[in-house]
Amino acid sequence: MTDRLARAQALLSDRGVDALLVTPGADLRYLTGYHALPLERLTCLVLPARGEATLVVPHLERPAAVAAGVALPIATWQETEDPFELVARLVGDVEVVALDDHMWAARVFALGAAIPGADQVLGGEIVAELRMRKEPSEIEALRAAGAAIDRVHRRMGEWLRAGRTEREVGEDIARAILAEGHLTADFVIVGSGPNGASPHHELSDRVIEAGDPVVIDIGGTTPEGYCSDCTRTYVVGGEPDAEFAALYEVLQRAQAAQREHARPGVTAESVDRVGREIIAGAGYGDRFVHRTGHGIGQETHEEPYIVEGSARLLEPGMAFSIEPGIYLDGRYGARIEDIAICTDDGLEVVNTTSRDLVRLP
Amino acid sequence: MTDRLARAQALLSDRGVDALLVTPGADLRYLTGYHALPLERLTCLVLPARGEATLVVPHLERPAAVAAGVALPIATWQETEDPFELVARLVGDVEVVALDDHMWAARVFALGAAIPGADQVLGGEIVAELRMRKEPSEIEALRAAGAAIDRVHRRMGEWLRAGRTEREVGEDIARAILAEGHLTADFVIVGSGPNGASPHHELSDRVIEAGDPVVIDIGGTTPEGYCSDCTRTYVVGGEPDAEFAALYEVLQRAQAAQREHARPGVTAESVDRVGREIIAGAGYGDRFVHRTGHGIGQETHEEPYIVEGSARLLEPGMAFSIEPGIYLDGRYGARIEDIAICTDDGLEVVNTTSRDLVRLP
Repeated sequence: MTDRLARAQALLSDRGVDALLVTPGADLRYLTGYHALPLERLTCLVLPARGEATLVVPHLERPAAVAAGVALPIATWQETEDPFELVARLVGDVEVVALDDHMWAARVFALGAAIPGADQVLGGEIVAELRMRKEPSEIEALRAAGAAIDRVHRRMGEWLRAGRTEREVGEDIARAILAEGHLTADFVIVGSGPNGASPHHELSDRVIEAGDPVVIDIGGTTPEGYCSDCTRTYVVGGEPDAEFAALYEVLQRAQAAQREHARPGVTAESVDRVGREIIAGAGYGDRFVHRTGHGIGQETHEEPYIVEGSARLLEPGMAFSIEPGIYLDGRYGARIEDIAICTDDGLEVVNTTSRDLVRLP
Repeated sequence: MTDRLARAQALLSDRGVDALLVTPGADLRYLTGYHALPLERLTCLVLPARGEATLVVPHLERPAAVAAGVALPIATWQETEDPFELVARLVGDVEVVALDDHMWAARVFALGAAIPGADQVLGGEIVAELRMRKEPSEIEALRAAGAAIDRVHRRMGEWLRAGRTEREVGEDIARAILAEGHLTADFVIVGSGPNGASPHHELSDRVIEAGDPVVIDIGGTTPEGYCSDCTRTYVVGGEPDAEFAALYEVLQRAQAAQREHARPGVTAESVDRVGREIIAGAGYGDRFVHRTGHGIGQETHEEPYIVEGSARLLEPGMAFSIEPGIYLDGRYGARIEDIAICTDDGLEVVNTTSRDLVRLP
């Protein structure tokens, strides 16, 4: 963590920022190791561009911060004290203060009032510069998360069948996400038949019918704090119609081409385009309604985003999803999603279950 | 929901606010019924003080918003469009824009740039005015949440015993929270022996010893979207020392006095004081290191806070925790927590398990 703080300080100096303020969330956990609860009481890392960092915590959270192994000086505040004044004293007389991108508006305003002389800027991009290039221990943690969610997909036949509701299946999956090595089940999408045409549909009381294609997109967070995210498309109790089979073949070719293409030195948008061209060539261009992917690490969605308009060059250590989809409103949808990590000269895909349409009895 | 929007609009007019902007979170769910994912893509309710509200959603989230029963006009934006410009067009030429308190800093700044002529103020207090006075259906939902977490406490003897680690016990509890009627297990605190002295300790690999007092503070969210939160203190495989028994008796008297005192027309701080005086009178004043309680509803912590300094008068329909605690660093802690709802002339306590020290084999 000390190394991460030092690298963040170097970026602050480069950008003319005097101090970075970080409230609970993935940035705080990355920089300090402290997975603080998102409480209404203020916890805030005060990181000056030069000199020593301090972690401000409510008095009653001090033991939790110490137990989390926080190695920084800790400054505490009591229930009836003003924590923003404490942060202001630690920041001192400065010109530019950066705030974490997910800081709550109420805190942005309170810090603006407590540090009236300084300009507020966003600091998320600075921490993202560090977070998007995974360290070896983080890559190992993403592999473990991928293996855990793969184990859930391999067990899908235990739960997914015609006659059950999406919600029943989803509750079983949520339990399995925990049982197979996650601390939390973060999302469970069971998109059966027409519900599969909504990319972010979660669960409904719809009864799954024989022959339904079913999009299953699931993920959780491991005890190490890293996220899994994997989508497979299933068909239960019968065969889908001919158009679905054809569409799925197109999708599979597109996703394979994207995995083949992604490597250090290519742009994020080029990965998106490689798949989009194949899907558009088959006449489904307007049915691939989302970007190709998102970075992943301590958050399910983080930098780098794999999207048209991003000329960001992929680098070794970057981890992201490759998840094209095709959605026919009112009928069905299909998506294939893997988490991949750029290596020195190619791509490591952490999810390993079959990308074929999975037929279940 | 229409009624809630109309009441919010009346408050906006009272306060001279032209429009309220609400991003995903409990405020959005309360006002629209839409439990939107906290995604990096912007979803935002645009509620003018007069006229029709609009929900801005990413194009691919439109089916999810419709499925959630959103009855408002929906405006969508595509992956490569600027959603903040869309919000600015809907807001129009105004002077004061209120933002939800938990809006991310990145969005506060982007909206400031997109609507440069307007002053930004915080809008959380406006929605809190509505949310803290529960409707009958919400009270029913809180009762159901309380009954669900009570079922978990009643089963504690299945999991909590000497020789197991806090983490092992906590994982069993998390599964039971789901099995007993919650959609998510939001927090599991198993504070055994000295770990009980940290009010927000969660789980550790400490092995629970015979005679340990154990603070168990657990909660989840039901499918209806309402939160449970209940703490009981246990002792396993033996008797605690004499000081603990004496301290627990003090705590029990304090919590009972607070339940007796809380009713419409008394101040929030007076509820805190009633318990604090009893605990201080027994010499533990400086060991009750937190406020007495927090409001609860669609969030575990919300208004009204039961804390020194709050002269807010309790009103029928307000729901909050009463949870005094006594913490002896390095030794043990004790806390008793119930969720209570102000009735027309008194207090309904939704948690019903015994508040005695619970002895387990």
